[in-house]
Amino acid sequence: MQPSQSPGPPHAPLVEVLQLELAPPSLADNTADLDRLLRALRRQGFEPIQVRLADADEFAARIRGENFHVTVLVGFFGSHWEIVDILPGSSSPTPLGLAIDLGSSTIGLFFIDLADRKTVAGTSIPNPQAEYGEDILSRLLFARARGNRKILQRIVIGGINRAIRETLENLGRSLSDLCAVTVAGNTVMSHFFLGLDPANLFKEPYIPAVNHFPTFRGKDSTLAMHPRGPVYVFPNAGSYLGGDLIAGVLACGMHRTEEISLLADVGTNAEVVLGNREWLVACAGAAGPALEGGALERGMPAAPGAIDRVRIDPATFEPDFHVLGDVKPSGICGSGVIDLIAEMFRARLLTRQGKLSSPPGCRRVVHTEDGPAYVLADPDRTADEKELLITETDVEVFLKSKAAMYAMLNVAVKKVGIRFDDVRHFYVAGAFGESIDPAMAVRIGMIPDLPMETFHRMGNTAAAGAAMLLVDRDLLKDMEKACGRITYVELNVNAEFMDEFRSALFLPHTSRRLFPSVNVP
Amino acid sequence: MQPSQSPGPPHAPLVEVLQLELAPPSLADNTADLDRLLRALRRQGFEPIQVRLADADEFAARIRGENFHVTVLVGFFGSHWEIVDILPGSSSPTPLGLAIDLGSSTIGLFFIDLADRKTVAGTSIPNPQAEYGEDILSRLLFARARGNRKILQRIVIGGINRAIRETLENLGRSLSDLCAVTVAGNTVMSHFFLGLDPANLFKEPYIPAVNHFPTFRGKDSTLAMHPRGPVYVFPNAGSYLGGDLIAGVLACGMHRTEEISLLADVGTNAEVVLGNREWLVACAGAAGPALEGGALERGMPAAPGAIDRVRIDPATFEPDFHVLGDVKPSGICGSGVIDLIAEMFRARLLTRQGKLSSPPGCRRVVHTEDGPAYVLADPDRTADEKELLITETDVEVFLKSKAAMYAMLNVAVKKVGIRFDDVRHFYVAGAFGESIDPAMAVRIGMIPDLPMETFHRMGNTAAAGAAMLLVDRDLLKDMEKACGRITYVELNVNAEFMDEFRSALFLPHTSRRLFPSVNVP
Repeated sequence: MQPSQSPGPPHAPLVEVLQLELAPPSLADNTADLDRLLRALRRQGFEPIQVRLADADEFAARIRGENFHVTVLVGFFGSHWEIVDILPGSSSPTPLGLAIDLGSSTIGLFFIDLADRKTVAGTSIPNPQAEYGEDILSRLLFARARGNRKILQRIVIGGINRAIRETLENLGRSLSDLCAVTVAGNTVMSHFFLGLDPANLFKEPYIPAVNHFPTFRGKDSTLAMHPRGPVYVFPNAGSYLGGDLIAGVLACGMHRTEEISLLADVGTNAEVVLGNREWLVACAGAAGPALEGGALERGMPAAPGAIDRVRIDPATFEPDFHVLGDVKPSGICGSGVIDLIAEMFRARLLTRQGKLSSPPGCRRVVHTEDGPAYVLADPDRTADEKELLITETDVEVFLKSKAAMYAMLNVAVKKVGIRFDDVRHFYVAGAFGESIDPAMAVRIGMIPDLPMETFHRMGNTAAAGAAMLLVDRDLLKDMEKACGRITYVELNVNAEFMDEFRSALFLPHTSRRLFPSVNVP
Repeated sequence: MQPSQSPGPPHAPLVEVLQLELAPPSLADNTADLDRLLRALRRQGFEPIQVRLADADEFAARIRGENFHVTVLVGFFGSHWEIVDILPGSSSPTPLGLAIDLGSSTIGLFFIDLADRKTVAGTSIPNPQAEYGEDILSRLLFARARGNRKILQRIVIGGINRAIRETLENLGRSLSDLCAVTVAGNTVMSHFFLGLDPANLFKEPYIPAVNHFPTFRGKDSTLAMHPRGPVYVFPNAGSYLGGDLIAGVLACGMHRTEEISLLADVGTNAEVVLGNREWLVACAGAAGPALEGGALERGMPAAPGAIDRVRIDPATFEPDFHVLGDVKPSGICGSGVIDLIAEMFRARLLTRQGKLSSPPGCRRVVHTEDGPAYVLADPDRTADEKELLITETDVEVFLKSKAAMYAMLNVAVKKVGIRFDDVRHFYVAGAFGESIDPAMAVRIGMIPDLPMETFHRMGNTAAAGAAMLLVDRDLLKDMEKACGRITYVELNVNAEFMDEFRSALFLPHTSRRLFPSVNVP
């Protein structure tokens, strides 16, 4: 269609810009004004193309008003094309796209120039739905009462719109420049975003109202954007297998290769996809809070003040850590917890069962009201001037999370009759996927004992997948195919999962031979 | 897809009714509620199928509310299918369709049972736009002022809605039973109906705003019908070649046969289509008022009180006529005028030049202020107790109309290099197409001198075509193809037409050998 407007590989954005100089009508060619434009678009491959009745009058008038020399924005809606706008032939618009990572606690917004594929702005806001429930379950309870679902929808779109307006103003751009939006969220978030009823998602057999959401136009919602621009919400493949994970599959490209890949997305829920271009198996479960740091006494998100890397000297048991931002630590985030547990295990501060022990010469294990604890930072080094410590209970909570993660991976692999050794690429995604140290995660038995080059730290794959779709519409077909191929394993009713879970509660695992590279002290 | 629900040939209405008992969701089949229904519909061939975001929540809730046993109404939108309604599985709806013949003076409404294809009601109303201009040109002038186009749209839809409500009430049916509407009108009427600007239709090169109108849903307009039912407005193929004529092509099926057919639609404008399944040539022009009776002193539409058939005794010159309705005559309609002129010509009351003569023994030719006239009915036999007569001026006006008609036919035939003898079927359509006597029309040289079995009186082909489409959606494809094949000959700028026109001002024609069957007295 249109040649790429910038160096780099050819791309196919969701909205194309075309300069068209149409032959003016004559007695010999009496095609109507709007039909004349559509004929030109079809000849360039934009087919099938649909026009809404409400737009026909305006479009026809503009074509004639511009004397058949027009700049046309054409939007891809999956099953068809639609005209997004008709501008003077002399104009050279540079439409923007917005990729939204619709998280339950944080919403990320990434503005992409559709022509040159560059990210021109990025921002994140707390999900304003938190006002009606900190976690998803409490929001679901809130949404049960009549009218409340609409409140949740209104408030999340309101928050997004404020962020859009602010960002566009900073960029010196107008709302109508924002011509395409992609949204990747988990199943519940997507339902709330679209005003759909998620009530059946949380009772067996856990069924969404909709898996493949209709692609719609800005004006079909209250989103602050071009009224005719396409909005694409990533589909779900199950109640716990949301559009965020589907976007993740796109982002790492595992649906395209012959080699087998594994994608583990560790957020509030843990989600796993295993497969290649021929098959995909997925499972998910509530494994994550402790892995994100959230469930621990001093746990916190990966934000300024969070300890994200930890080393412990096995001789002196003294810790060394890195803090995000130039501040004193106020807590520990997911990657920090993984490091900490792994290092405590190596230094024999933790038994295989996850019990704290105080080896001779160790001064950092103390006894608190909550039982024994390891002091990671003394009061004079912390932001709140209190000891920053991890208790045995914290470790217990964390082991359950890491066991759930490993069990999930194991169930997926066994489901298709392969072994971990068959996995060529292991993509670690999620809020802290970028900072996690695979070697540490292997040492505690959270992820399988594979060669280090197998692991890829992906960061926010939901946002990455959503942004990719904005500039590569061909991914839509990929995704529909991938969704159709996914076999979803429901863990809530899986007895095998419970067995695997119990075996994985140890450091690194009940079966030590599964982790040959880990030296059990 | 669905087997025909009534005896007769299989048919494919614009809206199908399906009873679906979906397998309820389970852990093994966790497809979402709406996706589950769409999957079932796709498996039955309803593909591609689109759902609007605004409907998704309601649809998903109904599917679950009915426990996956539903009756679904699926509507055909040309490029795709849409769900029109989801009803309880136990219901057995019988959706109605409405075919609208959107005339500039009269609007015909025909209600069709989509299941058994029977017409369940028919009515007609005067086009309420007449309030803003009796003829199309004066409405176009009115429409120029800002906002007036919307008035014309509102008033015509308002009139149609009143007729719909009244008819449905009489039938004991509700608005939501009306699930599909087809509209056949001329290019200007269709533009007004859809709120489109017809301004460029009446200046060279005579270009419509839109030829192929978007298929839309009831709720996209203010039509009184099911909000999600499809509304299809027949396309134009030129400014004077409207959807009414395209519907006529469908109605006589000339686009499907190998034999060459000619369709002449005689209304306020005269329109001609010539061709077969491989090619179609069309031309049109303002030929008609006199042919409809409207332009004559005592002309009137084919309504009660109109003389529609005339015979004159060549020996006594005494007339014999038939009056529509059981009333005294108050005027003469198109078919009556054709008969009258033809009979006057045979009885030597008219010369070949259209001058009145008074043969010996004739008492019915009188002299009026407007020149000589023939008295068709004496005052004691008429409704207004005045003489009902035709003046020489009337004859002159009429000859111009019939000459235009014949010239148009001739131009069309010559355009493709054939002769009238090659035409196997001659369809006479239009407001008075049903009552016109082809033998009389041949005698005055209005239509070519072909064997009588060539002629078919079709009546209102616009209404017939619109009604056919309601129960046979495959015609949509036929029509798009036919539209693409039509070559439109613009007569307004055609010098050949003027030559033909002048030659055809005689009775039956300057060149008598063109009408060998006509005995020129």
